[in-house]
Amino acid sequence: MLYSIIMAGGSGTRFWPMSRELFPKQFLAFDGNDSLLAQTVDRILPLIPEERIAIVVGPTHSSETKRILQRMNQGDGRQCRLVVEPRSLNTLPAISVAALQIEHEDPEGIVAVMSSDHMISPQDHFLALIQHAAHIAETEKVLVTFGIPPHRPETGFGYLELGESLPSFSTGLFSASRVKQFVEKPDRETAERFLRNGTHLWNSGMFVFGLKTYFEELALYQPELSASLNDVRKAIGTPGERKAFDLFYRHSPSLSIDYGLMEHSKRVWSLSGPINWKDVGSWSALDDISPRDAHGNILRGNAIVIDSENSIIHADKRVVATVGIRDLIVVDTDDATLICHKDQAQKVREVVSHLKEKNAVEALEHRTTHRPWGQYTILDSGSQYKIKIVTVNPCSRLSLQMHLHRSEHWVIIAGAAKVTLGIEEIILHTNQSIDIPKSTKHRIGNPGKIPLVFIEVQNGEYLEEDDIIRFHDDYRRIEDSQEPFHADRAGGSTA
Amino acid sequence: MLYSIIMAGGSGTRFWPMSRELFPKQFLAFDGNDSLLAQTVDRILPLIPEERIAIVVGPTHSSETKRILQRMNQGDGRQCRLVVEPRSLNTLPAISVAALQIEHEDPEGIVAVMSSDHMISPQDHFLALIQHAAHIAETEKVLVTFGIPPHRPETGFGYLELGESLPSFSTGLFSASRVKQFVEKPDRETAERFLRNGTHLWNSGMFVFGLKTYFEELALYQPELSASLNDVRKAIGTPGERKAFDLFYRHSPSLSIDYGLMEHSKRVWSLSGPINWKDVGSWSALDDISPRDAHGNILRGNAIVIDSENSIIHADKRVVATVGIRDLIVVDTDDATLICHKDQAQKVREVVSHLKEKNAVEALEHRTTHRPWGQYTILDSGSQYKIKIVTVNPCSRLSLQMHLHRSEHWVIIAGAAKVTLGIEEIILHTNQSIDIPKSTKHRIGNPGKIPLVFIEVQNGEYLEEDDIIRFHDDYRRIEDSQEPFHADRAGGSTA
Repeated sequence: MLYSIIMAGGSGTRFWPMSRELFPKQFLAFDGNDSLLAQTVDRILPLIPEERIAIVVGPTHSSETKRILQRMNQGDGRQCRLVVEPRSLNTLPAISVAALQIEHEDPEGIVAVMSSDHMISPQDHFLALIQHAAHIAETEKVLVTFGIPPHRPETGFGYLELGESLPSFSTGLFSASRVKQFVEKPDRETAERFLRNGTHLWNSGMFVFGLKTYFEELALYQPELSASLNDVRKAIGTPGERKAFDLFYRHSPSLSIDYGLMEHSKRVWSLSGPINWKDVGSWSALDDISPRDAHGNILRGNAIVIDSENSIIHADKRVVATVGIRDLIVVDTDDATLICHKDQAQKVREVVSHLKEKNAVEALEHRTTHRPWGQYTILDSGSQYKIKIVTVNPCSRLSLQMHLHRSEHWVIIAGAAKVTLGIEEIILHTNQSIDIPKSTKHRIGNPGKIPLVFIEVQNGEYLEEDDIIRFHDDYRRIEDSQEPFHADRAGGSTA
Repeated sequence: MLYSIIMAGGSGTRFWPMSRELFPKQFLAFDGNDSLLAQTVDRILPLIPEERIAIVVGPTHSSETKRILQRMNQGDGRQCRLVVEPRSLNTLPAISVAALQIEHEDPEGIVAVMSSDHMISPQDHFLALIQHAAHIAETEKVLVTFGIPPHRPETGFGYLELGESLPSFSTGLFSASRVKQFVEKPDRETAERFLRNGTHLWNSGMFVFGLKTYFEELALYQPELSASLNDVRKAIGTPGERKAFDLFYRHSPSLSIDYGLMEHSKRVWSLSGPINWKDVGSWSALDDISPRDAHGNILRGNAIVIDSENSIIHADKRVVATVGIRDLIVVDTDDATLICHKDQAQKVREVVSHLKEKNAVEALEHRTTHRPWGQYTILDSGSQYKIKIVTVNPCSRLSLQMHLHRSEHWVIIAGAAKVTLGIEEIILHTNQSIDIPKSTKHRIGNPGKIPLVFIEVQNGEYLEEDDIIRFHDDYRRIEDSQEPFHADRAGGSTA
């Protein structure tokens, strides 16, 4: 049986200001449609149904991941498995933990490991490739990698040096080879030689293997890690499961699957074929994936572009005007703007480091925050006030809550609201308002069929989100701290 | 007696997005202190008191001009004269109209014409220069211009070709010459020749002349204009004054003082001396007037600058991050961002043209609007709502008013408010709120000692500022349409 592990880590630094620590790249929709994560799930679905897909995420990204998956869910009850890591430890521990969970259900399982920040087309070739790889992995007991023939001397990727060609495992579309060795990111000269010689392919970072093969090779080359995983394996399905996971994550080294396993194994094969594979690694990658105007510009949103060439302008609602620029990336968001030369896109991380040093909220999150019931945007804030515009989805409601340090004033601007205030219940319509005093239990919900939109003006001496006492919550956020991290069906009652 | 006419026109295009049609360059403070207009008034004040200064402005700029002058007013009751043109007709009609008003009080007056977008230092040299020019204008009956020795082959200014040197009118600081001819903006090659030869000076656009000399020369070279001005002259001080001004402005040609008068007159002299004169003509002019960091950058506001050189970054509250840029101008405001190459700064006008074609509000005004009683900022707006944060100065109040198409909800976030609602009067404090239904007379004022800040949420089908019926206004805005345009003491009852 074929399973998938989708790696959806990401620290939100390389696509700042569109990505943030709490809203990394995999949640972004670069081509105006779905998020990269949703595209990754969608791409593999015809081959692997939701219940056999595991998504590995960090603890601060689990609710947004659930939201994305819930939106994709067509109400047929099928749900991806979410593997929430207590801390990020690179790919080897993450894949191993997800693999253990799959193994618990199906020790003979074949697993396709995907990254959530690739764009791949056409889908039918991709699915045929994975299917062929799964067949090889199952019959030949090897670790299958996917090599991409390079078309530029890229220094940002690792390479696969091909060994013996395997014509009997090749097809009309795909050619199979043994992998002689993994090569780390080369310098420019080496990359140019690889491009000339045709002996090296880009390492796409996708893998297909049988669980037995994977754990055998891991025992061989990472005996210590393998031993720690044995402790977790024994605990799965027992009351000690969570403790075992915690212990593993506390002591496991941070290792990539390439460095920890693939570079050592003698059982690595490569498959390659006619697929377009793009690693969405930094802003300059948009050059590869977005349509350009007559002057080579990639434009989005409210952009006014005069005498400008070969630039990427990501505006939104605000006006962004450029005059006489070339080879620049301009990204505008509610609270921050980036202007970056295309050749320096990898240095965007440094901006985020600067912001973090200053504890600036612009590194962490957007002005708009998504919640299971809807979303809110901070419009303004000052020493004693904060103003939000809040949208509540139909048939959703916030928790029954209370604040000790702030009062709130709500003005309904669209839809209908059911407000609980103390022991009262009141229905409010557009243009009505209500005051919520400090230390008073309250709740707002949308009993209607269209989104409820209201303005919240907060007043008080302390206005952070953590001044909240929850008495009841449809999304079980009262027990958030006791939520098991490791196996959580998305779209269920906690989403 | 010495008078000054300060030209404070300006369409707000060249310094977009910091300038707007309703907030042009002369209202901006480039070096972080006072606005250019306030600096211009301040600079001449030791020589010419307020009551002998006339400021010529367009009709949409008069209230902001009054606000600036009022802030400068030290409570000694002295006020500049405001000459509000019904439409902008270039410098010759503007100077002539202001000169007529001065002539009505003092036909022997000497006038110094200044522009409100120059930066000039040191002040003592400047004052000595004007004083010396006034002396020459009075005794020699000539039109005195001020030539600036060029230090680069500038193609954006007009030039003065010097004639006979006048050593007996020169001093240790200043040298006087006849002007042989006015030269329009030259091409690059010509400008380089001027720089080499030393025979041509920049035309600073400042003038000093006696009113008699001015009107004599005008009669000689612009007899038609001069005749129209005679009609106005006769009407000044009579009930027909306003009508005569209107008629003049309806028919007068649009002429610059250079083209219409100075280029023809044989009585033009030039004075030059050790003053730093800077025309703040476009964003790239900031290179001349602002201090730079070690990488040649001029930085303001919340800017994060990585590997960037020789750029001007004008941020504000929002984060502006640059990576690997050079020779760029980046200007960020609440609702718009400009990214412009320094060599193309003159094309910023084209951005404004684009915005005007689209009727975009970003060409017209900022999110923050100043009013005689304080200011408001639009935080957000949608199809049926608008949210403002409003500040009312101590002891000020808005008009008693009513809206037909919107209701309003106010939440006080700082200070104390006195609210009139129908026949009721209510005092509200921080954290209190009130609803103002449609078609209900209301007023809000600040009876206190600190600024009153409140949030206004508007709801309705039509949310423009012109849905307002005023019943009483401390600032006489009910009679705005009858306000005489031509002579208005700033800081008085209408400000």
